[in-house]
Amino acid sequence: MSWFYACDLFGVAVFAITGALMAGRKSMDLFGVLVIAIVTSLGGGTLRDVILSHYPVSWIRNDLYILVATLAALGTVLWVRFTRPINERGLLIADAFGLAVFTVVGTQVALEQQVPISAAVIMGVMTGVAGGVMRDIICNEIPLIFHKEIYATACIAGALIYIVLQQFKWSDDLASVMAMLAVLSIRLAAIRWHLELPRFHLLDREPKDSDQ
Amino acid sequence: MSWFYACDLFGVAVFAITGALMAGRKSMDLFGVLVIAIVTSLGGGTLRDVILSHYPVSWIRNDLYILVATLAALGTVLWVRFTRPINERGLLIADAFGLAVFTVVGTQVALEQQVPISAAVIMGVMTGVAGGVMRDIICNEIPLIFHKEIYATACIAGALIYIVLQQFKWSDDLASVMAMLAVLSIRLAAIRWHLELPRFHLLDREPKDSDQ
Amino acid sequence: MSWFYACDLFGVAVFAITGALMAGRKSMDLFGVLVIAIVTSLGGGTLRDVILSHYPVSWIRNDLYILVATLAALGTVLWVRFTRPINERGLLIADAFGLAVFTVVGTQVALEQQVPISAAVIMGVMTGVAGGVMRDIICNEIPLIFHKEIYATACIAGALIYIVLQQFKWSDDLASVMAMLAVLSIRLAAIRWHLELPRFHLLDREPKDSDQ
Repeated sequence: MSWFYACDLFGVAVFAITGALMAGRKSMDLFGVLVIAIVTSLGGGTLRDVILSHYPVSWIRNDLYILVATLAALGTVLWVRFTRPINERGLLIADAFGLAVFTVVGTQVALEQQVPISAAVIMGVMTGVAGGVMRDIICNEIPLIFHKEIYATACIAGALIYIVLQQFKWSDDLASVMAMLAVLSIRLAAIRWHLELPRFHLLDREPKDSDQ
Repeated sequence: MSWFYACDLFGVAVFAITGALMAGRKSMDLFGVLVIAIVTSLGGGTLRDVILSHYPVSWIRNDLYILVATLAALGTVLWVRFTRPINERGLLIADAFGLAVFTVVGTQVALEQQVPISAAVIMGVMTGVAGGVMRDIICNEIPLIFHKEIYATACIAGALIYIVLQQFKWSDDLASVMAMLAVLSIRLAAIRWHLELPRFHLLDREPKDSDQ
Repeated sequence: MSWFYACDLFGVAVFAITGALMAGRKSMDLFGVLVIAIVTSLGGGTLRDVILSHYPVSWIRNDLYILVATLAALGTVLWVRFTRPINERGLLIADAFGLAVFTVVGTQVALEQQVPISAAVIMGVMTGVAGGVMRDIICNEIPLIFHKEIYATACIAGALIYIVLQQFKWSDDLASVMAMLAVLSIRLAAIRWHLELPRFHLLDREPKDSDQ
């Protein structure tokens, strides 16, 4: 088992935990917790694979992914039941780490399919953030990543760094580590100093036909 | 026409009716009613086929599916217009029956594609419930199946029973009937005695970074 | 570069602008604006290509699409920043034009894949409206096209006209123009005289089991 595969499974577990916690905030039943956890952790990669026609999708090729997501979700429910508080700070850092891994995985898979660079960046970002967007849509929230501290921008930077280092023929391991470090450090800096992208405010008006 | 194909078409009609009723509750126009009916009845199977790369998807291979969903939606609008009350009890039982058929269809299709057992169960559940989840998302509701009486759990049981009986070399017809009976009886028992899965409650706090 | 390809790019730009404006109404950050713009302009075609197994999807085959959507989104933000008012009337007409192009593109792609007529019409409508539906779902709104002046109905008419003219062996260019004119004129007439499809109203009751 390579170090990178271990990171990937760790990312799945972390994203499943954030999904389970959101489901708990909506008072879902155990099945709902499981679905939201699986969608959050595996939805981004599934969307990427379907759009790239990269079959079979990850969790069908390897059933360890479903197992890890399921165990992480059940573990979260048990942990919270026995009233151990959630370490928000630790979870934030773990989430940034998962984001870094997923971004690199997505960019790698896209480059293997010989897509243009713009599409490879989009696939990296999509793998990192789409699971969380699906979680928020199912839970009837406007996705947080469009409002919050720099999140997806960290993915864009990581995907670009990975692509550039690949062009310079760096080894895959080294390019992955550098790209992950970029995502991690941008994201942790954004959390630490509450960095945000500029917002685009438009006065709320009556929805008109142009809204279609 | 096999008995199972007839059941499948019946399931499409029932799910289209539940979609049309929800669209009516949101005062959608006729086009909206049609779209919600089609998405509810065919969305789960389409998602399954796309994730499994099982092309062409059902309603492109066979245009009877679209026809049945369309007629069921229009029939629902006419029925309600002429103020005949909706038989809630009958609709509930029909819905449980449709759920049973869709679950077995989804599990069958997945097994034909040689996927692992965990993925086959997910495909069975997805075929049964994803159309209803899409309906609720488009109508801006938190999907009911994550809050309600045992619903998806019945699908999980049905998919597992089908897979086990297949392993024991039961005939496809017999395995299908047993699995459908399992889904139906669990679901009807849940309705009758208001059985629910335990909920996972988390106190609502300010959304923090970890929500991403 | 054919005239039709130019129309297609124009449609992408217009849809990206409507997406960016909606994101601004939700006070999203720059990344959110970009995502909503791309999803609105390319989401319908991507969904169509995935369901038809028509790979690679448009924006992976040709990275000009992403570039146009991105520039249109950024241009919208700059335009609004410098407080130039938005020409609602012009945008409405441009949007109707984009809808006409997308409908014809979607119907063409579907017919090339030899799908039944019902599926070709659905693909035409889907290409025209699904991007806007995704935009509304992500922004947590009930999709406007299910409530508003005749919109999708114009797509249905356009797709049918294209299919019929194809059967009569009209040239592709001529069939495209006639179908686009149909969409445009129906849509502009609907805006001008506020035409709506009849609504389907169902009294709001307690959600019951049948809502599943």
